[in-house]
Amino acid sequence: MRTQVGIIGGGPSGLCLARLLSLSGIKSVILERQTRDYVEARIRAGILEQGMVDLMRRAKVSDRLDKEGLVHDGIVLAFDGREERVDMASLTGGKRVTVYGQTELTKDLYDAVLEDENVTVIFSAGEVEPTGYLEGSPKLSYTKDGKRTTVECDYIAGCDGYHGVSRASVPRGMIREFERVYPFGWLGLLADTPPVHEELIYANHERGFALCSQRSHTRSRYYVQVGLDEKIEDWSDDRFWDEIRARLPAHIAERMVTGPSLEKSIAPLRSFVAEPLRFGTLFLVGDAGHIVPPTGAKGLNLAASDMYYLSTALIAYYNEGRSDLLDRYSEVALRRVWAAVRFSWWFTSITHKFGGDPIERKIQVAELDYLMGSTAGKTTIAENYVGLPFDPSFK
Amino acid sequence: MRTQVGIIGGGPSGLCLARLLSLSGIKSVILERQTRDYVEARIRAGILEQGMVDLMRRAKVSDRLDKEGLVHDGIVLAFDGREERVDMASLTGGKRVTVYGQTELTKDLYDAVLEDENVTVIFSAGEVEPTGYLEGSPKLSYTKDGKRTTVECDYIAGCDGYHGVSRASVPRGMIREFERVYPFGWLGLLADTPPVHEELIYANHERGFALCSQRSHTRSRYYVQVGLDEKIEDWSDDRFWDEIRARLPAHIAERMVTGPSLEKSIAPLRSFVAEPLRFGTLFLVGDAGHIVPPTGAKGLNLAASDMYYLSTALIAYYNEGRSDLLDRYSEVALRRVWAAVRFSWWFTSITHKFGGDPIERKIQVAELDYLMGSTAGKTTIAENYVGLPFDPSFK
Repeated sequence: MRTQVGIIGGGPSGLCLARLLSLSGIKSVILERQTRDYVEARIRAGILEQGMVDLMRRAKVSDRLDKEGLVHDGIVLAFDGREERVDMASLTGGKRVTVYGQTELTKDLYDAVLEDENVTVIFSAGEVEPTGYLEGSPKLSYTKDGKRTTVECDYIAGCDGYHGVSRASVPRGMIREFERVYPFGWLGLLADTPPVHEELIYANHERGFALCSQRSHTRSRYYVQVGLDEKIEDWSDDRFWDEIRARLPAHIAERMVTGPSLEKSIAPLRSFVAEPLRFGTLFLVGDAGHIVPPTGAKGLNLAASDMYYLSTALIAYYNEGRSDLLDRYSEVALRRVWAAVRFSWWFTSITHKFGGDPIERKIQVAELDYLMGSTAGKTTIAENYVGLPFDPSFK
Repeated sequence: MRTQVGIIGGGPSGLCLARLLSLSGIKSVILERQTRDYVEARIRAGILEQGMVDLMRRAKVSDRLDKEGLVHDGIVLAFDGREERVDMASLTGGKRVTVYGQTELTKDLYDAVLEDENVTVIFSAGEVEPTGYLEGSPKLSYTKDGKRTTVECDYIAGCDGYHGVSRASVPRGMIREFERVYPFGWLGLLADTPPVHEELIYANHERGFALCSQRSHTRSRYYVQVGLDEKIEDWSDDRFWDEIRARLPAHIAERMVTGPSLEKSIAPLRSFVAEPLRFGTLFLVGDAGHIVPPTGAKGLNLAASDMYYLSTALIAYYNEGRSDLLDRYSEVALRRVWAAVRFSWWFTSITHKFGGDPIERKIQVAELDYLMGSTAGKTTIAENYVGLPFDPSFK
């Protein structure tokens, strides 16, 4: 088999990238290890920056997103018994975020991609192996139904996440990895209950961080910071609801509607960046190249700028014969990656309980107090939260 | 002996406070452990916020400061080979800082205070002991020339620094102390050489932090971050000059004028806050109540707001019979203290080398890169550096 771009991973990054390429007539093959049902059921992010929404529109898969996505103008920070709002829209000249679950976004992308004649999706593709990308003869091999197949291509896009084979296949000496692991995780609960507030609430509390998020007007997503030694089976729904209410200002906690969990899980928090993001004809996209803690909702939105840069570069190559953008991909993508890694780390650091030394929380509250009392301070949160712009010189 | 306000410590806080009180007709006695020569020779801060300059004017001791102080509109941040400027004046509606050595300021204050008939200064006062301040009968006892003397007063101002007796005299259970010690110190060198740059340069470098400061057009004050195990005798002047040049962008390093050191010392970095700042009729002022790392030059300027609040409160008490401001002193002063503790910690954290994990510096550079590219980001530095305003409701 032969194609132009071989894509490893059929999550939102790989699917959206394939769509963007297809609309410029570029053919791709996507290898996905799991079934479609499995991929669509994965609970992930739910906050889209304008840049990601624009990409979905450009990929012509935004009908439902435009109809059902909830546009949020602000976020709430709760600390020290206070409830403070950051009006992102007014602080950034009208930029907003959109609440739309990644599960829904993935469904929309599959609906489009599976009817797209430029895109071939191979589900349940096991033992995927990218080879030849350093020697100018990139290939993707995989096993399906006991049969080994090789796809020849011009370029490989590694969209297979942090644990994927793309980055793992790169020779050790060619890649530098930066990592910070946090001394806590997030326990998340999904429930078909109306969200406690129309916007997201990020809460700093002496018991630990809490986040009131949502997927729609009828589906809530809540999180509490927990120790790394916590076990999910020790957290009944009741215990979860009690804990999150204890971490919110009383007037918010008392209006929280509880209900049975649809899903409940504990995720560790990690900052990770691989440098560079290009190895010969292999390009790393999204989580395959970098991970941020979920505070600030940057994960998928950071994949968005990678997709934007890589699709722009590949289209320039195929349509205009230019490889200059492919050459700049790693450097330009990484600059925005580091900005988001910085913001996600920082937003985590002012909202979570770390060592527990009393001065830590005093300084956090002083920082939140300063930020909420300063227009410049609020703006630094707002302009990062809605998403820093893509590099306008990349075209 | 009897006075109205007994002041422990004849550094700039105690002296300026005595002057401010005297101009409203309030009498004070200052007990200073050292001689005048010793106090005046102490090398300390050199950057005054507008609030401190205004206090010196109000205390009628600003003639020389107004003439010789160097007004700075901005600071420079050097990182990743770059030199970026924060134009504080334009970002804060015209606020600036003034370069004027604490040694000069202390001289000016003594010149005024020693001629002030409302102020009595007792030098070489040993074994100072504040008593009775919790029982409504405050007294200061001290020994001089072998003779023990007691000063009765209405209020005691503890202006005797971090290691002073004021805070140490408070019963353990009445005070809460917050502390963070940094894993490094500052090696400082004073030299009669022209400063390498007309404004201060704060440098983040992989070898560690460096600061190019100054006291005048002909006197430089430079610092390099060093490990806590470093010994001053291992640092020849030549080694110091080589090290600081290595930490600056080349085009700055090459124009540095070196010369013999007038003073060279290593100081640890510490964040410290005592709560509350009032115990009966004893009030803690400046370093006696709180310490910040020198990054951001907040130490003396934080003492300034304490002096302002305490002098305002005492004047309201003596002139109008109101004790409401004395009752609010601790809470109002602490709010600005925590804001400065936060800023000093944060400015230290983005400019110094901590653990040395490579991701740490990547995140620092990403933060500096973001801040320098964002008007809001630069403004958050500028408005803290020039000094957050005193609470206008405190009157």
